Amino acid sequence: MADEKSIEQMSLNDNSAVAASAIEDVVDPWNVSTSSATGVDYDKLITRFGSSKVQPALIERFETVTGHRAHHLLRRGIFFSHREFDNILTLHEKGKPFYLYTGRGPSSEAMHIGHLIPFIFTKWLQEVFDVPLVIQLTDDEKFLWKDLKLEECRRLAKENIKDIIAIGFDPAKTFIFTDFDYMSSVPEFYRNVIRVQRCVTFNQAKGIFGFDDSSCIGKIAFPAIQAVPSFSSSFPHIFGDKKDIQCLIPCAIDQDPYFRMTRDVAPRLGFRKPALLHSTFFPALQGAQTKMSASDPNSSIGLTDTDKQIKTKINKYAFSGGGATTEEHREKGGNCDVDISYQYLTFLLEDDERLEQIRKDYTSGELLTGYLKKELIEILQPLIGAHRERRKAVTDETVKEFTTPRKLNYTPSNPTAAS
Amino acid sequence: MADEKSIEQMSLNDNSAVAASAIEDVVDPWNVSTSSATGVDYDKLITRFGSSKVQPALIERFETVTGHRAHHLLRRGIFFSHREFDNILTLHEKGKPFYLYTGRGPSSEAMHIGHLIPFIFTKWLQEVFDVPLVIQLTDDEKFLWKDLKLEECRRLAKENIKDIIAIGFDPAKTFIFTDFDYMSSVPEFYRNVIRVQRCVTFNQAKGIFGFDDSSCIGKIAFPAIQAVPSFSSSFPHIFGDKKDIQCLIPCAIDQDPYFRMTRDVAPRLGFRKPALLHSTFFPALQGAQTKMSASDPNSSIGLTDTDKQIKTKINKYAFSGGGATTEEHREKGGNCDVDISYQYLTFLLEDDERLEQIRKDYTSGELLTGYLKKELIEILQPLIGAHRERRKAVTDETVKEFTTPRKLNYTPSNPTAAS
Repeated sequence: MADEKSIEQMSLNDNSAVAASAIEDVVDPWNVSTSSATGVDYDKLITRFGSSKVQPALIERFETVTGHRAHHLLRRGIFFSHREFDNILTLHEKGKPFYLYTGRGPSSEAMHIGHLIPFIFTKWLQEVFDVPLVIQLTDDEKFLWKDLKLEECRRLAKENIKDIIAIGFDPAKTFIFTDFDYMSSVPEFYRNVIRVQRCVTFNQAKGIFGFDDSSCIGKIAFPAIQAVPSFSSSFPHIFGDKKDIQCLIPCAIDQDPYFRMTRDVAPRLGFRKPALLHSTFFPALQGAQTKMSASDPNSSIGLTDTDKQIKTKINKYAFSGGGATTEEHREKGGNCDVDISYQYLTFLLEDDERLEQIRKDYTSGELLTGYLKKELIEILQPLIGAHRERRKAVTDETVKEFTTPRKLNYTPSNPTAAS
Repeated sequence: MADEKSIEQMSLNDNSAVAASAIEDVVDPWNVSTSSATGVDYDKLITRFGSSKVQPALIERFETVTGHRAHHLLRRGIFFSHREFDNILTLHEKGKPFYLYTGRGPSSEAMHIGHLIPFIFTKWLQEVFDVPLVIQLTDDEKFLWKDLKLEECRRLAKENIKDIIAIGFDPAKTFIFTDFDYMSSVPEFYRNVIRVQRCVTFNQAKGIFGFDDSSCIGKIAFPAIQAVPSFSSSFPHIFGDKKDIQCLIPCAIDQDPYFRMTRDVAPRLGFRKPALLHSTFFPALQGAQTKMSASDPNSSIGLTDTDKQIKTKINKYAFSGGGATTEEHREKGGNCDVDISYQYLTFLLEDDERLEQIRKDYTSGELLTGYLKKELIEILQPLIGAHRERRKAVTDETVKEFTTPRKLNYTPSNPTAAS
């Protein structure tokens, strides 16, 4: 799993940005770049990646099948694309088992608010579906891609696990693992890795991931390691000998190449293709062209930021879609499509009506950017504050509880249906 | 580790074979082919691979330092090439620790006499030096290269381990492991694999191993897995936290590409380069151009062959260097360089004087091929018979004893010298 994007930063006032939008966005696990001020063109990505748009009918079916209102991240098109999510709903409807899989590449100790989004959504999915969840930390990937010592990658993974646990996952239903540790714990993991590695040629890996002759052999072989948690047989302590339990992967769209490859090899190995729900990127404070960067603390709200830091960062850096002067703003109105405070509110403000009111009033010019920033700060401060407190309560023992390979509280509704 | 060679079989009577000897022999872990009737040109290989010839002075030094007469496989140029073997002798001289590493690719259940040779030599080295020995079975490699099921590769590895144990290794000093099992037992193994995989580019792997764009990513990444047993830190249960204990690898020369790569990356990882002793190939019954093939039982003497099978195979298939008729033979003499019975005797008959007498008398025409065959059969029958008996005595419990990661009976003569 990757977490940081390099981006060709462009001035938002540069008119050439619009002209250049014909150039394709770059979206892969290690690079996201776009020349458009409103960010990546996600509809084009759906066409290019061959995934399906999350349509209103699918959301409606979700609500009918589960009896739950769809999460605002789903309703608002933040989880905008999918593969076989309809099939997951059918499994749920029929009482057949499936599981959730997501992950993180632990390249830095400082996780930020953007990293929380897929986990918050995954937690909600787990609560709605009541299914097991596996969370992979690709410390081996970070060692291969970053200029870090191996032990440092392992340490970062452990620190990140604490942040993930602090989100509030249920230890009875959640297994968290690092690649370095899991590879040397459960034989089925390495066996599946080699099975996948036998199915993928360098040519294919080059085509999917952009490797070249100067890529190290570790990078070239790595995609198999992110692929195999998609297969239930990689977790015998959870699924016993059931090899065909499907999984649903909530992740940012840049991770899709891994799972296109996985879906391609799965049938050849007698495994189920994973289903996916893809999210857009959480934008940097400076603008919507990119995800936030862990290497620039001012591009994001960190999970350890104080109330004061949050306030200062939002006020100082959150890109404004408002007019140059109050008079101009009152007259012409604000642009929600590029205003970062508004964008963040779409991720974080649960109340649809209130968000819609803000949108209308900001667009009309009635509300100033300062109001949106204040609203956002008031949501962020308690959210991050509570996370900070929960994070403090996570001990090494809690980590051990989540990371020990063990049976989860998982009973197939219909055991015969799983085979 | 590879064990079977495809070979372009050529008629020994084809004169073009001599003309074609200018064409380079192919020697890599998966292919050995030569157009010369006397087999691979080993002197040329030394130049091409950049290794060193085992010179009489080195053998003399070995005998001085160890107080042991050199093994006939060393005296007779079967272990003909080395890297840093002189340094191993220096370590032994100074009472500093080192260890032995060898292995096998378990591609078939039926091991043959050719497979025994490196193990017999390794056992002797272990007895002379009194050092720990690790033996790797690359069941993952065989799964990647052969059209076999993964579980079948694991089963073959276990069967082969029984044959290896039957050679008579000391369980107090010997650790045998399969990649599939060891990868999921000891974390340091995978960590070293990834460390090596970070150091080697596809370009380099292509240059060393001949991979191309259609090679699967598992093959491309595999060389790291054969590399890491060269590093003492891959075996913390044996070497504790000592990361720089050198190893000596006795192996057939076709395995050298793995260890050229290993020696290249070792200093970058702070590890010692492995030392090597390279052997020639044990020829097929049909001729010296190749190693024996496990897929053709008539090309070799199997470890399960009965006395009768041994006799029949030698008499029927062992290529003769003798004259077409007894008269011609008596007149012109036999050719030891291509006579397979004589070649086998150089591997198996320990008595130097007796071997020299046979060579003289066969070359002069005094001895007929039938005599050499009889001599060989009389050595092979008890050798294979004794192996068969010892093999029967190897239980699953014995296998478990050898394959459990554990402390070996290993005390550095000079502990401070190891750090």
